[in-house]
Amino acid sequence: MNIDAITPTVKTQLQEFEKAFAEILRSQVPLADKIVQYISELKGKRLRPALVFLSAQLHGILTDKAMDAAVVVELLHTATLIHDDVVDNSVLRRGHPTVNSLWDNRISILVGDLLFSRTLTAVLNLKSQEALSILSECANRITEGELLQVEHERDYRLEESVYYDLVAKKTAALFSACCELGALATQADAAARERMKRFGECLGIAFQIKDDLLDYAGDAALLGKPVGNDIRENKITLPLIHALTQADEQQREEIIRLLEQDEVGEDKVKMIVRFVQEMGGLSYAENVARSYAEQAHEIIQSYPESRAKSSLITLAQFAISREN
Amino acid sequence: MNIDAITPTVKTQLQEFEKAFAEILRSQVPLADKIVQYISELKGKRLRPALVFLSAQLHGILTDKAMDAAVVVELLHTATLIHDDVVDNSVLRRGHPTVNSLWDNRISILVGDLLFSRTLTAVLNLKSQEALSILSECANRITEGELLQVEHERDYRLEESVYYDLVAKKTAALFSACCELGALATQADAAARERMKRFGECLGIAFQIKDDLLDYAGDAALLGKPVGNDIRENKITLPLIHALTQADEQQREEIIRLLEQDEVGEDKVKMIVRFVQEMGGLSYAENVARSYAEQAHEIIQSYPESRAKSSLITLAQFAISREN
Repeated sequence: MNIDAITPTVKTQLQEFEKAFAEILRSQVPLADKIVQYISELKGKRLRPALVFLSAQLHGILTDKAMDAAVVVELLHTATLIHDDVVDNSVLRRGHPTVNSLWDNRISILVGDLLFSRTLTAVLNLKSQEALSILSECANRITEGELLQVEHERDYRLEESVYYDLVAKKTAALFSACCELGALATQADAAARERMKRFGECLGIAFQIKDDLLDYAGDAALLGKPVGNDIRENKITLPLIHALTQADEQQREEIIRLLEQDEVGEDKVKMIVRFVQEMGGLSYAENVARSYAEQAHEIIQSYPESRAKSSLITLAQFAISREN
Repeated sequence: MNIDAITPTVKTQLQEFEKAFAEILRSQVPLADKIVQYISELKGKRLRPALVFLSAQLHGILTDKAMDAAVVVELLHTATLIHDDVVDNSVLRRGHPTVNSLWDNRISILVGDLLFSRTLTAVLNLKSQEALSILSECANRITEGELLQVEHERDYRLEESVYYDLVAKKTAALFSACCELGALATQADAAARERMKRFGECLGIAFQIKDDLLDYAGDAALLGKPVGNDIRENKITLPLIHALTQADEQQREEIIRLLEQDEVGEDKVKMIVRFVQEMGGLSYAENVARSYAEQAHEIIQSYPESRAKSSLITLAQFAISREN
């Protein structure tokens, strides 16, 4: 599913975006060029560029700055995805083979680095210290979030507050940067930028919690990857954190012992999924995701009605209702 | 060996640099902080920061800009080293265990990314579109150089011209950026910047050819890593390229068959090293390295005598005379 199906408002911009994105990725090195072409054809939702465009539209007339910002955020996002797939040893993303599975881990590392370099090129086009500041903070939060996640792998006593910190860094930081950069592109005032920053942060948290929910309760065919991945990868997310707090001590210790076992058979995955469901972990996480989506909605409530405003509201709903 | 032993001119700046570098690396995430502390204590030659300081000194009074630029280039360099060690599966660097061997590949990828993010932070401090432009071009050349190298792995018919292109991108690009950034930090004119850019490019090529030579003829104890690594990693460098052109067709095909064998025993490595030596590959590469060092020397010949000038000349000599 491409985001322009739910927000036709940005359809034209997203078409232009595809050209600009493919253009900046091009390389004189044949191997590099082949891989970046594969990457740019995979597309994905283009949710982050859409957020930049909508946030800009909400505050003024779209300019080239919004396009440059959209290219920057998607480059940064794609770079982290390519490295994530190596870190998580993933073979599929959105139903397509990952770069590490088609080529190898070494090439994926270098192609991810190439995308980071192209991010610098795109930042240069923005010609704005403020934009650079937003992107620098965002990139640092993302990479620290990834390391925080590794640090808490197999930490089955992870506190809910640490989970939110992790989600805020790993995912919401970029959503937040997209929305702030969109406002900045139309030279919106500091208050508007701050508002969009918070809107993106709430949207990003809702989006990630939904991601974590889909890993438990999604449809593998729609997701383009198997469910239960987080259990296999020893990642503890909100549904499980909540389920563990609801279980009595004996049951909790039993489940933790099961989780700590190195072997990950399908029986184990099914048993954990059932436990999470029975303890209300899914509905709890759904409620939290909904409350963040509602906070996002509220933040932009004060804006006069416009196509951009209603698209952003649609996106906030999409973040928690999507099936992939 | 630390660079300040041969260029006392930059000793004070390098001491301040260590503080600034350690400071920008710090992280709130305990795992990340532990690793970046390990990285900052390893030090290394600090050749690139020294180049920034010397190039700045050659053109004017040192300012904070030179320190900021030195931090940027060393961050970028360290990020690529950490990823290189994963790509090459290295366990030792400068005699110390690599991040991937002490932690693991996944953590190394993420820590490298953290260093790229910190590069953005440091670029922000520079507050200069021109500096960003230099760094962006440099980062793109480095990553494309790394991919070009992977593309030509096991390409035992690599042409000498492609080798120089690879070396220019992979190594000389950063040396060149260091020297240009140093000049920029003192607001030197366009001609001076261009001159220093070329100086850095020649120095970098000389430095990399010497690196490739040390891999054949260095002392493992001084290098802190075994010799013959490039043969084991299927990297073809100048000494071997030249040796192959000097051999008759039968001998060339024999050596290529040997190189193409997957197994890399010590006998094979020794045989290749002997072949390269006998065919004059080492002395040829030494001559080329020397001619680049001399070109570098010539470029700054026109400057009036100063401590910075003689240090840069010393560095050009060091690039080709060093033993590690």
